[in-house]
Amino acid sequence: MSAQFSVQAAVLKEKFNIDLRVMGITGSRTMLLSDVGIDLSKWRDLQREKGEKADMQKFVQRVHGNHFIPNTVIVDCTADSYVASHYYDWLRRGIHVITPNKKANSGPLEQYLKLRALQRQSYTHYFYEATVGAGLPIISTLQGLLETGDKILRIEGIFSGTLSYIFNNFAGTRAFSDVVKEAKEAGYTEPDPRDDLSGTDVARKVIILARESGLKLELSDIPVQSLVPEPLKSSASAEEFLQKLPQFDQDLAKQRQEAEAAGNVLRYVGVVDVVNQKGIVELRRYKKEHPFAQLSGSDNIIAFTTQRYEKQPLIVRGPGAGAEVTAGGVFSDILRLASYLGAPS
Amino acid sequence: MSAQFSVQAAVLKEKFNIDLRVMGITGSRTMLLSDVGIDLSKWRDLQREKGEKADMQKFVQRVHGNHFIPNTVIVDCTADSYVASHYYDWLRRGIHVITPNKKANSGPLEQYLKLRALQRQSYTHYFYEATVGAGLPIISTLQGLLETGDKILRIEGIFSGTLSYIFNNFAGTRAFSDVVKEAKEAGYTEPDPRDDLSGTDVARKVIILARESGLKLELSDIPVQSLVPEPLKSSASAEEFLQKLPQFDQDLAKQRQEAEAAGNVLRYVGVVDVVNQKGIVELRRYKKEHPFAQLSGSDNIIAFTTQRYEKQPLIVRGPGAGAEVTAGGVFSDILRLASYLGAPS
Ligand SMILES: NC(=O)c1ccc[n+]([C@@H]2O[C@H](COP(=O)([O-])OP(=O)(O)OC[C@H]3O[C@@H](n4cnc5c(N)ncnc54)[C@H](OP(=O)(O)O)[C@@H]3O)[C@@H](O)[C@H]2O)c1
Ligand SMILES: NC(=O)c1ccc[n+]([C@@H]2O[C@H](COP(=O)([O-])OP(=O)(O)OC[C@H]3O[C@@H](n4cnc5c(N)ncnc54)[C@H](OP(=O)(O)O)[C@@H]3O)[C@@H](O)[C@H]2O)c1
Repeated sequence: MSAQFSVQAAVLKEKFNIDLRVMGITGSRTMLLSDVGIDLSKWRDLQREKGEKADMQKFVQRVHGNHFIPNTVIVDCTADSYVASHYYDWLRRGIHVITPNKKANSGPLEQYLKLRALQRQSYTHYFYEATVGAGLPIISTLQGLLETGDKILRIEGIFSGTLSYIFNNFAGTRAFSDVVKEAKEAGYTEPDPRDDLSGTDVARKVIILARESGLKLELSDIPVQSLVPEPLKSSASAEEFLQKLPQFDQDLAKQRQEAEAAGNVLRYVGVVDVVNQKGIVELRRYKKEHPFAQLSGSDNIIAFTTQRYEKQPLIVRGPGAGAEVTAGGVFSDILRLASYLGAPS
Repeated sequence: MSAQFSVQAAVLKEKFNIDLRVMGITGSRTMLLSDVGIDLSKWRDLQREKGEKADMQKFVQRVHGNHFIPNTVIVDCTADSYVASHYYDWLRRGIHVITPNKKANSGPLEQYLKLRALQRQSYTHYFYEATVGAGLPIISTLQGLLETGDKILRIEGIFSGTLSYIFNNFAGTRAFSDVVKEAKEAGYTEPDPRDDLSGTDVARKVIILARESGLKLELSDIPVQSLVPEPLKSSASAEEFLQKLPQFDQDLAKQRQEAEAAGNVLRYVGVVDVVNQKGIVELRRYKKEHPFAQLSGSDNIIAFTTQRYEKQPLIVRGPGAGAEVTAGGVFSDILRLASYLGAPS
């Protein structure tokens, strides 16, 4: 993120007359503040030399209290619910918020609705393109359809790069546990693969899209089919889990064979069924000709079926994780904010 | 367009506090003007009753001369070069321009560059999302990647719904001419199918994307493989063309067989090769596993290969033509303009 930012800052200044400055950076332990803007080419060194003890309140006061800065945006790049719980207060104080953090939009419905209501009344902006599909244009596409009066009927997608990779490669005679191991070794999974296989992260994306489409659902309203076998849910370590997983290969092998015999493949998908006002996360079968059947690598794919795109959906596909593409998504929100605040484009 | 507009206008007013008014509508013969805004639910009746003789100069003066209207945008929904040649003058006068018309962006390079330079200096906006892929997020995705500092390496796509349909269905033992006839009967082609088969429209889209990516190319720099057999290029009528087309089926049948024998399919694509600074429109072969091989219906598909999306491209797919989706693309430009001009969102 800081890399993209520092390279692009000069271009933005010249081409778009946008003067972006980073006034503060904070982690959970140390924070770095500046009155004129931090030189991003050496922020890590600066943090080591001039870093102070992290203090969220002080941080917000300092970055927002500078009278030479006309607009303040806080970019939350954590996965923390506590940080997310501050958005309401920040927006109320006129601070714009941009984030790839799913916690606020997939948190308790009441708080979410309060946040949206506040943001709609005020002139502050809240953008979160990277919460679903990282740099892929998912939220902006959905918002574009909604704002221009299209009716969303269904959103269906493969939202996890890890589970995309696993099911794209779960073919032939390979055991499910082998593919999971391979995915872990290739760096596609979380340190504990159960964090992917549980489907929780997919459910968070489903609830974000469901709420964006107007459904008033809680995360707990989404049935989630976990791929972690019941007896392994509380196994001590990730290693132990991987060791024992082969004992449970048979069930998925059977499902795969049955699917294959019918000309289908298995895919782990999230679905927002707007018509029936529900969401679900589960393993589904798709015909070999279906766009979801033809994925490769760890691509995400999201299909919007709408009144306008009813017979053939609007589909976005591509890598939906990784530092660089996620930073790209966050950055495009920052530029959108700059445009909205009146920078020429 | 007017239908979406009139339904959505009330929603926009209430939800976003945007007050959109249509102050004038002109065709090539009649125009309708109003000082307070035209009631879109009956604009055709009004035009019949109160329409005046169309006069572009008078039209522009009237829609822009109203002192109660803070911002003026002209939405050019023609395919006319003459209308497009006015954008420079309109932008210079502070009138924003939105259009699905490809003529300005695919016209003479010098004029195009002048238009872009002007628009960058001024505070007026020029949006043209629907020129490529109609309502699909193509231009906005490309602009988002570029503005955030990604480097575009290649853009490759099936940009013609007609040619998508034709090659998706040109399989088995069917003759090419039969598929073309079927496409015409199903309403997928222009009145004269040669207008699709010539590839000119695809070349215009390629040049638009090439220029957006920074290449300084003329339309004539793009080699275009026409699918109209040489001897039929100047046949009198569309009917005569369709009658004679079967005489030329053999060539494409052979190409298809050869492709198939190698596990490939034929697809008619446009390519912007940014690295080598060229564009091309031609028939290419793709492996059966390639995303382009797996299309159905008359879908467009566009793949962006970039520094960030290098191993796996970012892909957008879906219907890229039709009145409703095109109006959706134009409408989303209008809302983008409204946001840029300070409407809350
Ligand atoms: N990476 C991706 O592919 C991807 C894709 C889409 C969305 N996202 C989302 O993007 C966010 C960041 O992802 P990541 O992969 O960069 O996560 P990460 O590597 O775990 O980084 C999290 C960062 O948050 C900081 N942090 C945690 N709690 C904090 C607190 N209370 N106050 C201040 N800072 C705190 C940490 O700082 P310390 O080191 O100082 O603790 C760390 O720098 C997450 O919400 C994730 O879901 C990521
Ligand atoms: N339809 C699609 O699927 C699609 C998709 C993407 C982009 N587009 C683009 O969208 C534009 C419109 O497409 P369309 O299918 O609606 O075309 P169309 O049916 O041919 O309509 C063209 C309109 O332009 C008017 N017009 C032509 N010359 C004019 C002039 N000199 N002054 C004023 N009005 C003039 C015509 O009015 P009169 O009847 O009064 O002559 C007519 O209403 C084209 O640029 C097309 O390339 C269309």
